[in-house]
Amino acid sequence: MTLPTHVKLIDVGPRDGLQNEKQTVPAAVKIELVHRLQDAGLKEIEVTSFVSPKWVPQMADNLEVMAGIARQSGVRYSVLTPNMKGFEAALASKPDEIVVFGAASEAFSQKNINCSIAESIERFAPVVAAALAAGINVRGAMSCTVGCPYEGDIAPERVGYLAGLMKGIGVQRVDVADTIGVGTPLSVQRAIEATLAHFDLNHISGHFHDTYGQALSNTLAALQLGVFNFQSSVAGLGGCPYAKGATGNVATEDVVYLLHGMGIATGIDLDKLIDAGQFISDFLGRPTNSRVGKALLNKRLSA
Amino acid sequence: MTLPTHVKLIDVGPRDGLQNEKQTVPAAVKIELVHRLQDAGLKEIEVTSFVSPKWVPQMADNLEVMAGIARQSGVRYSVLTPNMKGFEAALASKPDEIVVFGAASEAFSQKNINCSIAESIERFAPVVAAALAAGINVRGAMSCTVGCPYEGDIAPERVGYLAGLMKGIGVQRVDVADTIGVGTPLSVQRAIEATLAHFDLNHISGHFHDTYGQALSNTLAALQLGVFNFQSSVAGLGGCPYAKGATGNVATEDVVYLLHGMGIATGIDLDKLIDAGQFISDFLGRPTNSRVGKALLNKRLSA
Repeated sequence: MTLPTHVKLIDVGPRDGLQNEKQTVPAAVKIELVHRLQDAGLKEIEVTSFVSPKWVPQMADNLEVMAGIARQSGVRYSVLTPNMKGFEAALASKPDEIVVFGAASEAFSQKNINCSIAESIERFAPVVAAALAAGINVRGAMSCTVGCPYEGDIAPERVGYLAGLMKGIGVQRVDVADTIGVGTPLSVQRAIEATLAHFDLNHISGHFHDTYGQALSNTLAALQLGVFNFQSSVAGLGGCPYAKGATGNVATEDVVYLLHGMGIATGIDLDKLIDAGQFISDFLGRPTNSRVGKALLNKRLSA
Repeated sequence: MTLPTHVKLIDVGPRDGLQNEKQTVPAAVKIELVHRLQDAGLKEIEVTSFVSPKWVPQMADNLEVMAGIARQSGVRYSVLTPNMKGFEAALASKPDEIVVFGAASEAFSQKNINCSIAESIERFAPVVAAALAAGINVRGAMSCTVGCPYEGDIAPERVGYLAGLMKGIGVQRVDVADTIGVGTPLSVQRAIEATLAHFDLNHISGHFHDTYGQALSNTLAALQLGVFNFQSSVAGLGGCPYAKGATGNVATEDVVYLLHGMGIATGIDLDKLIDAGQFISDFLGRPTNSRVGKALLNKRLSA
């Protein structure tokens, strides 16, 4: 086993985690969450999205949130921008990175953004060009790289196809996302290997969902391919819309515990991270989805 | 990665899972659970224990449960026997295998069974001898092989010491148990490697708890060492007494999903297994602890 010695985590909780919340989360709470994440040592945070508030009302306060963050040097703040209109609105918020997204599944692309994969890439091309011209980094989120709720298993060739298209329009790095959490170690490795034909390890991150409890074994499998960037969500924020009550994003706390246990450095203070998870869980009025969070909170109570 | 092509799962739900339940589970429910597990394809089931009912009242119906099972040929039914008195009581129930248990941590041994590791082995020696003389298989459960609630980290040498003592009294195979679920892939591999000095892969099983959500990544790490026997608990039955509300045994459903996803055969019908988990969860009046159970039950409801 050759494993990376350092891993960088990208916390997507404020955006991917909160975007589907039914109750309104005030901007001040989102800002406090971002502050707690950076205090815990996170160096990349996906803060918000610039999508029409008609579709994602929870992120309508995007400018307010971005303006309210006391930015730390060395921390990258990213925002999701689906189109030129979103990108232009995002510009005022001075993001370090914008995120465009495509699916490896044609059916998911049609259902989610109402166009084919190729069409979605055409739509993103001017956004990517404009971002790069403005000196803003560009990440591409590749969803459904292992399985799709409509198509079932996704062939690695489809992932390679999407990665190649992303590369072609200038996307600098990509997320290999198992959006519905159905992947297992070998299928996840195949998706990553298909991506490696277009991006090197510096420019690939793993994004796993814990819907079937497989996210950490998939993380281990990705580490064994040399992947050293991962996305996760504090407190496991972000349910899976396709399985009510099931967990969504893997909890950052659980990934940190895995990595530290293996002697892999993250620069993250697990105790502070658990406090951040408890802060947002308390606000949402429900227990954390992080097993490490639960276990260590119980340990604190019994100490 | 060289991985086993077949894995045998030992469901410990009826014994390890239910033993700490506060509410009384009637013998008929336990028997039905065992029937459902064997119908789902489980070939090894840890059914009950012959411990003083003063300490474990939930298992006081051990003879009734064992007598009530319609045994299937090819299925191994095991029972826990802490001492000669327990073994003699168990004999009447005709177990295929008895289980003795020791800890790799001196402090845990003292707190849990009130004697040193060496003394516990002396106590088990006549039990093992009597079982072997009666043609009954003997398994040794080695607890706290990675971490201990009193001592913290456990050195692999302590695991090797315990495994050697177990081997010395005639124990045929052992479980490498991460009793409090604190292990991560490399620490779990070190515990297994220490055991491999005394037992071959045919005679080692992995027993991981999901308290910190690490059980499946630890399972993957064990598979990568060639381990092909694992213990798990249907519906994740069995909370961890050291962390209230936290999960204990890894759910059999989650392990099966991992294995099948990697193309590793188990002989288990996942749908029937989920039904078995739902049966006992319904009886206990709480949702399953299995993430796969939750996700697939949600999928059934939305289908």
